[in-house]
Amino acid sequence: MNENIILRIDALRDKMRAANVEATIIPHSDPHQSEYMSPHWHQREFFSGFSGSAGTLVVTLDDACLWTDSRYFLQAEEQLEGTNIKLMKDGLPDTPSINQYIVSALKAPATVGIDALMFSISAAYRLKKDLENAGLNLVTDFHPADGIWTDRPDLPADKAFIHESFHTGEDASTKIARMMAEVKKAGADSIFISTLDEIAWLLNLRGTDVKYNPVVTSFLYLADKGSVLFVEDVKINDSVRNYLSNLGINIRPYREAIEFLASLPPNVKVLIDPESSSAIIPVKLADKMVEGRSPIKHAKALRNDVQIAGLREAMIRDGVALVYSFMEIEHMLSMGEKVTEMTVCRIITEHRSKQQRYFDDSFGTIAGYKEHGAIVHYEPDEKSDATILPTGLLLVDSGAQYLDGTTDITRTISLGNPTPEERHDFTLVLMGHIDLAMAIFPEGTRGAQLDVLARQYLWKDGKTYLHGTGHGVGHFLNVHEGPQNIRLQENPVVFEPGMLTSNEPGIYVAGKYGIRSENLILTVPAFTTADGNFLKFETMTLFPFDINLVDSTIMSSVQIKWLNDYHKRVYDTLSPHLGTNAARWLARKTLPVLANPYDLD
Amino acid sequence: MNENIILRIDALRDKMRAANVEATIIPHSDPHQSEYMSPHWHQREFFSGFSGSAGTLVVTLDDACLWTDSRYFLQAEEQLEGTNIKLMKDGLPDTPSINQYIVSALKAPATVGIDALMFSISAAYRLKKDLENAGLNLVTDFHPADGIWTDRPDLPADKAFIHESFHTGEDASTKIARMMAEVKKAGADSIFISTLDEIAWLLNLRGTDVKYNPVVTSFLYLADKGSVLFVEDVKINDSVRNYLSNLGINIRPYREAIEFLASLPPNVKVLIDPESSSAIIPVKLADKMVEGRSPIKHAKALRNDVQIAGLREAMIRDGVALVYSFMEIEHMLSMGEKVTEMTVCRIITEHRSKQQRYFDDSFGTIAGYKEHGAIVHYEPDEKSDATILPTGLLLVDSGAQYLDGTTDITRTISLGNPTPEERHDFTLVLMGHIDLAMAIFPEGTRGAQLDVLARQYLWKDGKTYLHGTGHGVGHFLNVHEGPQNIRLQENPVVFEPGMLTSNEPGIYVAGKYGIRSENLILTVPAFTTADGNFLKFETMTLFPFDINLVDSTIMSSVQIKWLNDYHKRVYDTLSPHLGTNAARWLARKTLPVLANPYDLD
Repeated sequence: MNENIILRIDALRDKMRAANVEATIIPHSDPHQSEYMSPHWHQREFFSGFSGSAGTLVVTLDDACLWTDSRYFLQAEEQLEGTNIKLMKDGLPDTPSINQYIVSALKAPATVGIDALMFSISAAYRLKKDLENAGLNLVTDFHPADGIWTDRPDLPADKAFIHESFHTGEDASTKIARMMAEVKKAGADSIFISTLDEIAWLLNLRGTDVKYNPVVTSFLYLADKGSVLFVEDVKINDSVRNYLSNLGINIRPYREAIEFLASLPPNVKVLIDPESSSAIIPVKLADKMVEGRSPIKHAKALRNDVQIAGLREAMIRDGVALVYSFMEIEHMLSMGEKVTEMTVCRIITEHRSKQQRYFDDSFGTIAGYKEHGAIVHYEPDEKSDATILPTGLLLVDSGAQYLDGTTDITRTISLGNPTPEERHDFTLVLMGHIDLAMAIFPEGTRGAQLDVLARQYLWKDGKTYLHGTGHGVGHFLNVHEGPQNIRLQENPVVFEPGMLTSNEPGIYVAGKYGIRSENLILTVPAFTTADGNFLKFETMTLFPFDINLVDSTIMSSVQIKWLNDYHKRVYDTLSPHLGTNAARWLARKTLPVLANPYDLD
Repeated sequence: MNENIILRIDALRDKMRAANVEATIIPHSDPHQSEYMSPHWHQREFFSGFSGSAGTLVVTLDDACLWTDSRYFLQAEEQLEGTNIKLMKDGLPDTPSINQYIVSALKAPATVGIDALMFSISAAYRLKKDLENAGLNLVTDFHPADGIWTDRPDLPADKAFIHESFHTGEDASTKIARMMAEVKKAGADSIFISTLDEIAWLLNLRGTDVKYNPVVTSFLYLADKGSVLFVEDVKINDSVRNYLSNLGINIRPYREAIEFLASLPPNVKVLIDPESSSAIIPVKLADKMVEGRSPIKHAKALRNDVQIAGLREAMIRDGVALVYSFMEIEHMLSMGEKVTEMTVCRIITEHRSKQQRYFDDSFGTIAGYKEHGAIVHYEPDEKSDATILPTGLLLVDSGAQYLDGTTDITRTISLGNPTPEERHDFTLVLMGHIDLAMAIFPEGTRGAQLDVLARQYLWKDGKTYLHGTGHGVGHFLNVHEGPQNIRLQENPVVFEPGMLTSNEPGIYVAGKYGIRSENLILTVPAFTTADGNFLKFETMTLFPFDINLVDSTIMSSVQIKWLNDYHKRVYDTLSPHLGTNAARWLARKTLPVLANPYDLD
């Protein structure tokens, strides 16, 4: 039994009955459609106990269900135990969507209650349509936590600071001019931006409001005249105040943002991105709203030369930190010292934090030993923390925020005596990783077209992974960002030079191990021929894959050559920054893999 | 100068002025949204002289432009010479869409006139929206050919006939019951079907109205009671009349179909597929229309065991015919006899027509020698017919309609002394063809995800092809059918067991040669694992690729093994049906290709 959760849901049901609401949807979201958010917004965790970064709770008068994706199936099963909340496995063929579930669970003309501030316009619109088709009603001013979550944390009061142009490569004034031109092309006079990383990118402003994501909780109204940043005054020091004032941006309290929209004159046209703006906004703007994609999403994804140069430097520092980290872990194991998953996390963060321009980790380090590696977004805690022995696989997914770039890398290493199964699965994942890294493709190519390159060898073995192959990565910003990605699902965004994306195929054997190999890849021009411009990826991450896990007999010679060339580059680039012992350690880790001369493929 | 065309367009402009129409769109289409159609509907060819199977003419008072895709660029350039009609190359980044062009060419509030019967609902809707946004008007009862095309051919009067159940594997009555159940699921009482191959499949009825496509020009209204086939009476003999009567289907004249819809009682709900139904239909049906995908599109694509067994047999006959055809061509060349592209077409059709159950070719044979091979849908005629010499490449794309299956195969052969460039390009195409043929993928996979497998090696060489990699193929029906395909563009249809698709990557070097390698591949179950059901392709076509053009040093050993296994299967399957000399010829053509032991890939 999980008494706290049961009591909270009981209280919620009382509140639902009082409001004549028969179902409520509690997403893990904030008014900014952030992926990660400050604890003030952790409503879904408060009501369910589930702490994963993706998942939605639905509570009816009789039932409670939590939807989450494959990364969190195992974690959710553990955390939901004793809560009477059912786990709904998103992405499996038999799992209904949330809207389907609600339509089948309620009888018309029942009412569903949500807090519109927590839903995107698109999501609320789809919900409303599905409910209406089933004769159900939607009320948008039902606030589940009010009156129940009495010890709710405050909004963050952290200070904002300026991200200097020698890191960003472009002044905020230039960015604002570029974006306002796009706003006008879209038929609007102004834009209201809710997305925190868009605001951070546009204004070259950063903060520490959200763990791992250096953003400032705010809304931005951007116009030729009368631009306003809605942000708590306590967060803005004099230097930032002057900086914003020079950009023509006024400051008003965060909580006034939504009502400000209602007060705009009737002839103003405000561009609103329905995917990343709260469903409360159209209610306030009405005819003043022009729906369209925020131009910042696309502009932010394209790195300029200064950003690329910074990222290259950050990758060297990150690789150096990882060399020292993995050396230390190996050394401790060899000396018989106790090493747990949390030791691994601590060591990696320690070595990174010694690097120049280190600011924070870019997400909570995943160190999954043996069966924990199969829990896709596992983060060890005191309760789960496993002791690492010199056998089995260890999956480590980690990253850092440097002032000149954000990193994200996954390596899976064998701690000793790899089994044939471990080596086979590792190599299938690596072959897919390499084929994607080597891809060359014409302009206009989308991620869903390239995804199969990473999956093809797993599929031939009857295996797959349910997460995406690649996500966009910000620049000293969110480690997960759009608009491009590489996944099974169609996404019309095409690759363009300057986009940074992860390349992270994996395989997860529940109860045994998880394997994932992740580098960040930058889209760069390949060549121009009679058939047009072609693009390719440049692998930016610098750290060796575990050659003890490579079964070269199933790799093509082209793949083996890529691996050896990559390892040579890793050694050549990192070793000048390493001490003698560390350079020697890296030399051993980057020894060439030999093709089997008796096997032609 | 091309006097005829210029006079016709002048007459059209007089008519446009009289009707106050400033632009008209003349598609290559019929009221059934057919890809190929009887000459009665060849309006676009009448007004432009361009005879390709894809292309749309737009005439304004000052200008005339023809849009067509890459397959027809070269052909259109030739045929449009002297007509004053400009070629608009569809698919190139700088080419505006037809709607964009019209919007920029006309000044509001001008009027665009079309014949709605010739447009799909979807196309007319998009056009109307684009015009309205630009302040332009659309009239839908402008008939370009009326009064100008005085010697227009009649509608076909060919007899319909029954396609027997031992070929189709399912009675029409069962198909009707299955489809009516789907119609009701879609919230309708009945369905009005315009698509000729859907009618042919559903009723197990075939005809000879359209060259290469064994369909019957008709509309079908299908309901529990009162089903009507709208077809010219002269086309229906007593046996077909009885057969239809037993299925509960009445016969009424073809030209009454559209007005019949207006006469239906107001409470009837008729399912209409907006992609394949004429834009005149919603005008007649109004509130009686339920928009939705025709369930026949999907059902028709899934072959049953009887159809698959028939197709296997048809493929053997087709392979045998091709062996004798290519033997004869080689023999003639070796004897110094004159062989032209049209000789090749004649020989192949002759050998096919000697095969059991041969009914017709499935499209006009493409035999493109040297630079003609680069014209993607080139069909030789008296004027273009090139003489074939014992050097250079010959591309032959051909197919047949057998009562038990439809075939479509492309082979590119070297007639002597292949150049390194020819062998290299041929091998890149073949490697992509093989990787697609070998693909294994989970249920739920779409064609756009697999397309890269066929293109990846070309892309690495800076080459591509602008046509699709694969199209669906009918069963003794249209050689091009949906709903699945394999192409760059997203299509939400997923592969399912029983779908037959082409696998036809290519490369086209203008002025030099074209290379395409095409087999038909059947989707079949691969295996079921903990990760779900996996599918794969079975290659159905049986004829060797030209091993003289294979550069095995750039192939992987897995690809070489596939090729040798395929050639062994071709020989083992076809040789029992061949005479001694032909079997010996085939044995030579299917000799194993050796991997280069000094090259590991």
